[in-house]
Amino acid sequence: MNHYTYFCPSCQKEYSRKIIEENLIYLCPDCGKAERNKPLEGILKIKYDYNEIKKSNIKNKLLNSLPGSIWNFPELLPLEFDEETKEFPGIDKKLLNTLSLNANPLIKLKIENFNIYTFDDTRNPTFSYKDRASILVALKALQLGLKQISAASTGNAGSSIAGICARLGLEANIFVPKTIPESKRIQIQSYGANLFVVDGTYDDAFDLCLEISSKKKWFNRNTAYNPLTIEGKKSGAYDIFISFNGKVPDNIFIPAGDGVIIGGIYKGFMELLELDLIEKLPRLIAVQSSGSNAIVRYFHTKKFELKRAETIADSICASAPRNLFMAYEALINSSGFAIEVDDDEILNAQKEVIQKFGIFVEPSSSASFAGLKKAISNGLVNEKENHLLMFTGNGLKDLNSLKKWNEEIKPKSYQQWLDELNEAET
Amino acid sequence: MNHYTYFCPSCQKEYSRKIIEENLIYLCPDCGKAERNKPLEGILKIKYDYNEIKKSNIKNKLLNSLPGSIWNFPELLPLEFDEETKEFPGIDKKLLNTLSLNANPLIKLKIENFNIYTFDDTRNPTFSYKDRASILVALKALQLGLKQISAASTGNAGSSIAGICARLGLEANIFVPKTIPESKRIQIQSYGANLFVVDGTYDDAFDLCLEISSKKKWFNRNTAYNPLTIEGKKSGAYDIFISFNGKVPDNIFIPAGDGVIIGGIYKGFMELLELDLIEKLPRLIAVQSSGSNAIVRYFHTKKFELKRAETIADSICASAPRNLFMAYEALINSSGFAIEVDDDEILNAQKEVIQKFGIFVEPSSSASFAGLKKAISNGLVNEKENHLLMFTGNGLKDLNSLKKWNEEIKPKSYQQWLDELNEAET
Repeated sequence: MNHYTYFCPSCQKEYSRKIIEENLIYLCPDCGKAERNKPLEGILKIKYDYNEIKKSNIKNKLLNSLPGSIWNFPELLPLEFDEETKEFPGIDKKLLNTLSLNANPLIKLKIENFNIYTFDDTRNPTFSYKDRASILVALKALQLGLKQISAASTGNAGSSIAGICARLGLEANIFVPKTIPESKRIQIQSYGANLFVVDGTYDDAFDLCLEISSKKKWFNRNTAYNPLTIEGKKSGAYDIFISFNGKVPDNIFIPAGDGVIIGGIYKGFMELLELDLIEKLPRLIAVQSSGSNAIVRYFHTKKFELKRAETIADSICASAPRNLFMAYEALINSSGFAIEVDDDEILNAQKEVIQKFGIFVEPSSSASFAGLKKAISNGLVNEKENHLLMFTGNGLKDLNSLKKWNEEIKPKSYQQWLDELNEAET
Repeated sequence: MNHYTYFCPSCQKEYSRKIIEENLIYLCPDCGKAERNKPLEGILKIKYDYNEIKKSNIKNKLLNSLPGSIWNFPELLPLEFDEETKEFPGIDKKLLNTLSLNANPLIKLKIENFNIYTFDDTRNPTFSYKDRASILVALKALQLGLKQISAASTGNAGSSIAGICARLGLEANIFVPKTIPESKRIQIQSYGANLFVVDGTYDDAFDLCLEISSKKKWFNRNTAYNPLTIEGKKSGAYDIFISFNGKVPDNIFIPAGDGVIIGGIYKGFMELLELDLIEKLPRLIAVQSSGSNAIVRYFHTKKFELKRAETIADSICASAPRNLFMAYEALINSSGFAIEVDDDEILNAQKEVIQKFGIFVEPSSSASFAGLKKAISNGLVNEKENHLLMFTGNGLKDLNSLKKWNEEIKPKSYQQWLDELNEAET
């Protein structure tokens, strides 16, 4: 079945899957550019035969699925699929099911007069949104017979692909900056991945991974660069559609570093639009830290300028957002916007999210809540709309941020506590 | 609906739910004993009208459910349930669904000639098996109109009830020993719970929590002590039955500290037996650390002797297993046994589990795998049987254990890595 092709949104050229996949091509062979410390150009997208899919009962299929099983829709996945056996050749179905994401991601809370929904991807197999991309990349590697996968990462993408590789018997090679939170570094190593700590930024790790992987013919999962990362991350849009029972929220607040989650979610909703399943795009809103705000700056100036990024929200720390142009397109076409919040606002929001929603988010995730609060106070969104916050990473992976607002408590003896608590009573 | 009663397996007395619940009674009013640093006596069990349940189509109901939604079987839960609306009065159904546990807990792997299944509870709402008990206790608190819950904990039970309370708008008061791993302490605090760190052992924290809670009329979730903890933990047995499609494995290896998970799983299987859904109990095997082996010692000598427990597997560190007698009954009646492994074996098993199964377990969870390996080499189990390992806690909650077998990697510059990796190629 050749149900999809690759195409370049910049120069409009189209390529067969055979050419792209067998030669491990990632960017457009014609206009693609991966320059050091710059956004990528010529990122390939994957296109399906939407007219053919429209004839099937895709709406019911979606609405009768649980969120988090991205392989339920093989017609919308760039994988080999056997229509007769209903299986993906080379992939053990039972093992696949164990990779299911959180099946109940949606939580609603009313805060003041605002209807706030949260989308919880902190309970995925390796505890971040990145699993959506890693799973698809790893399944493709299995089908292509590739054993070695590589990735650059601020932490989550690396631990994600390392964990998925462990589950599926593949080998992972991960490039990270030295600023990686300790828990994420140890998570990657624990899964048995080969770890390369770069004395430089995430952007340097990204470029090093490109260079080495190309030489060694490792299947490269670098976010944005490998078109399957956006393709995996689009599943978030399907899961939102499923969770809202065939509807979509008005506004979606998305933490943004490289801009790939936004790009992916945008692609997913564009497909739902193309398939006549929704009537309009939800407004996509990129939330960044003031210390890593290249997308916000580009949104206002249409200029990319390299500025060394630094923020406590490590997962969205990127000086050169590799998916900058697609993220910008997503914001513009969905009538969305980009907004920045500072690290203090992010940490305050982390406390509020964990305590009000009971979801153990990391700082980059709580940035979405901080972004909503700022958008409210700036009058950019209102009470009549529904607001969805994307929670993309787990707080257990970054102890140091939590220590900033949780003091160490001094132990007291049995008797001391007894006296103190009894006293408090009277 | 009064579909259940409380009874004491020791003195056989039966009590109405009204008397027990309205008066916050936990142990048998007649023969119950909670003495400092000793196993509890007179732990109450909950009994349903099994003959009535048999008439319903409980088998289909179970087998058509996904694992992890413990509220799907209200006839087997000690909660108020409205048969007409099909809702639990006082409990928001949508919020309930967000508390669903891992819906795909079962993973199979063949190692050497052994069929090994693993049961993954590391992806629950607060990332441990303890959520099964916490959810039930918190739902009961909602129905009783109680706002304050308390618990003693080595870490997981505390972070579990703290997180569930945050989600449901309740207040948690947690007593922990000073040896609690930092990540677990911070997880508890982050959820906004009141934390009491005791300069003593877990057993001291347990006793202090009993004393304070009784005075302050806090609803006490202490494991084993509150009959709902065993009742919540029995759901593991249902989920195993569902995951094995109506069958059960031959052997189940269960990490054991207080013995409550074993007690709960035993109760679940006993109910399935009572309901004619299974023909025999699986063999239940308690795995302990040599540094905290009171159940193993009792299994061989039938004597309880207080010995200060110490092990890297903090979740199963208990000098005085509060559920000792019920755990012993479970082992004997299921033709099971108790086995101990040392901390090195536990850490080696942690590495093997994370890297072979891709499941991020904490040391107490990997103890089950270490126990299987020892049971194999001791000839206690064989290749023809199916072996299930319970993975009850998440490794991200205990960074220090992971540091013991993951070295810190020195950062190298872009050029250094390039040179080194290029050299490796030639």
